[in-house]
Amino acid sequence: MTTADRTYNFSAGPATIPLKVLQQIQQELLNFKGCGASIMEISHRSATFIEVLDSARAGIKQLLEIDDSHEVLFLQGGSRLQFSMIPMNLLRSAEDRAAYIVSGTWSQKAYDEASGAGNIDLAWSGKMSNFNTLPASSDLSLSDDPAFLYYASNETIHGVQFKEPPEANNTALVCDASSDFLSRPIDMQRHGIVYACAQKNAGPAGVTIVVIRKDLLDRSKANLPGYLNFKTHVEQNSMFNTPPTFGIYVIDLICQWLINDMGGLKQIAEYNLTKANLIYEIIDQCSDMYRGHAEHEHRSKMNISFNLTSDELTAKFLREAGQQGLNSLKGHRSVGGIRASIYNAMSQEGVLALRDFMKSFYTQNS
Amino acid sequence: MTTADRTYNFSAGPATIPLKVLQQIQQELLNFKGCGASIMEISHRSATFIEVLDSARAGIKQLLEIDDSHEVLFLQGGSRLQFSMIPMNLLRSAEDRAAYIVSGTWSQKAYDEASGAGNIDLAWSGKMSNFNTLPASSDLSLSDDPAFLYYASNETIHGVQFKEPPEANNTALVCDASSDFLSRPIDMQRHGIVYACAQKNAGPAGVTIVVIRKDLLDRSKANLPGYLNFKTHVEQNSMFNTPPTFGIYVIDLICQWLINDMGGLKQIAEYNLTKANLIYEIIDQCSDMYRGHAEHEHRSKMNISFNLTSDELTAKFLREAGQQGLNSLKGHRSVGGIRASIYNAMSQEGVLALRDFMKSFYTQNS
Repeated sequence: MTTADRTYNFSAGPATIPLKVLQQIQQELLNFKGCGASIMEISHRSATFIEVLDSARAGIKQLLEIDDSHEVLFLQGGSRLQFSMIPMNLLRSAEDRAAYIVSGTWSQKAYDEASGAGNIDLAWSGKMSNFNTLPASSDLSLSDDPAFLYYASNETIHGVQFKEPPEANNTALVCDASSDFLSRPIDMQRHGIVYACAQKNAGPAGVTIVVIRKDLLDRSKANLPGYLNFKTHVEQNSMFNTPPTFGIYVIDLICQWLINDMGGLKQIAEYNLTKANLIYEIIDQCSDMYRGHAEHEHRSKMNISFNLTSDELTAKFLREAGQQGLNSLKGHRSVGGIRASIYNAMSQEGVLALRDFMKSFYTQNS
Repeated sequence: MTTADRTYNFSAGPATIPLKVLQQIQQELLNFKGCGASIMEISHRSATFIEVLDSARAGIKQLLEIDDSHEVLFLQGGSRLQFSMIPMNLLRSAEDRAAYIVSGTWSQKAYDEASGAGNIDLAWSGKMSNFNTLPASSDLSLSDDPAFLYYASNETIHGVQFKEPPEANNTALVCDASSDFLSRPIDMQRHGIVYACAQKNAGPAGVTIVVIRKDLLDRSKANLPGYLNFKTHVEQNSMFNTPPTFGIYVIDLICQWLINDMGGLKQIAEYNLTKANLIYEIIDQCSDMYRGHAEHEHRSKMNISFNLTSDELTAKFLREAGQQGLNSLKGHRSVGGIRASIYNAMSQEGVLALRDFMKSFYTQNS
């Protein structure tokens, strides 16, 4: 097994993981740091695992530049469970209202689920244009003193990404950052909750990272279903039940890679911008064949969605890309075409390989 | 790294995994079956992963000898989330009642959580004797036509295990089998639900296997929180959201190991009985030093809990056992003493090493 056998993996998630991280997992898989067992085999309450948990938490805090204002939780159930937990915990009473920005498939699902849990207002929706654009803060329709304003910073399927969090006076922002978490700095002081399922930039599927401002924990009522109560998880240090230990271990390694190898979030953000521009340039230069889904100013640095001029050409693109080791480029069925997900762990080398392929495919087929 | 560096790991969970399985994970970690990426890095909707998911499901069905009567789900959130999901899905109306057998810490927590979700009757409790015994079916206090009867087949902390499921006429049995799942055959036709968090016998932490009889799915109401609805998960083939792909892959490997290397559940049950008896024999022979917690007839084949005559002796036992590579033997604080968890993957060689140590420790300290 050599690294040359690995392909360039543009999967939207679960997604590519830094090779260095995978190699470390592989190397210590049978015996973690001399404890005589795999990281998968040891008690979550052992000193060995607690050190990993503490390190993962500290890594995220360091990367996000947060201190004691927020708690970091490692939960299960993905975004889907957060769709329920957030309104169940953050609405202050049965009469309270929250506002949702619907900018793509995932915030639509969040809005639909929340609407079953309380009074939810639609602050804005991009559905009419198949979610190819985002609102200015002045476009938002907000009631007086909403419990929170919910948005998805990056929509994985439609490839739109907020450049800055929406402005909503002093309302707590709740951000689904699943597909751009740890890909750029984020102003945590404006956020009540930032959460992300790990399987894009932060780790394997099966861990949801929830960063929550401490004062919001007072809203969690004691009669919530036990696992769905943020306050309980904070009080129990993410050990209300056995946490997904292996996934947390991988998150810890990825945080260390971001800090020590990639220079932190400001630097990875520049790297991600450079990578994205390499592809968007070709889309713009060859716009008679490649049609970007998102409007220019709202283009995602993580997920580049574009269509070709016919289904046949799309099929040919995917087939020939695959032959060159460029994999998992098929777009989601709701947008069609191609989606190149270029998360933190996708190297510039991989992006350049895709760019070269796109250029030569254009030349040969136009 | 040689296998000789690995210790005998008696952790109650996350627990030891067959070495052969760990070696396979290690070997294919960077490139799963030639797909050019790690199993952690590929889409849950890829053909490569679907094959793993289907194989894991088929393996469990084969081992449990079930056909189309039951569905197999791979969920997240551990037993804690099941404590809520089960009453929320299975109670037929707001007036309906369910019955719980409380035989240890875990069924106590299940009962406490369920009591917040509906009308729950205590069918029996072993609390008065610190959960060292189990009820006969004639001891159970049941209302007319309960929605289900809940029990934990094995209590990890107290080391008591039902030899046979309780009898309750035609009431659907719901079994928390977290700590003895796949360790012996189980009569699935008597069970409405058998569930288990994976990290004892079936895989790493972060996956909950739920085996549910199909007719019970009609009880799941559409207004449940999305992730908490069994019917939704069945309709979506455990892909309502991104499942914990790596954990499911490990479960698949463990099922293959059980089927191909260990001969299935009847044979592993005999193996587990043999292993448990090797330790219980010493406890009985040296009963002036080793005091088993559970009554003889209810002794667990998975978790052997016993006390020594003083805290000092217990500390010495743990220290000297550790020096001989016998690890994670400390009992839970609610019982104290020693707990040896000897799940499927604990070899007879490891059990014999513990037995030899117990014999010589007895000789040297009595």
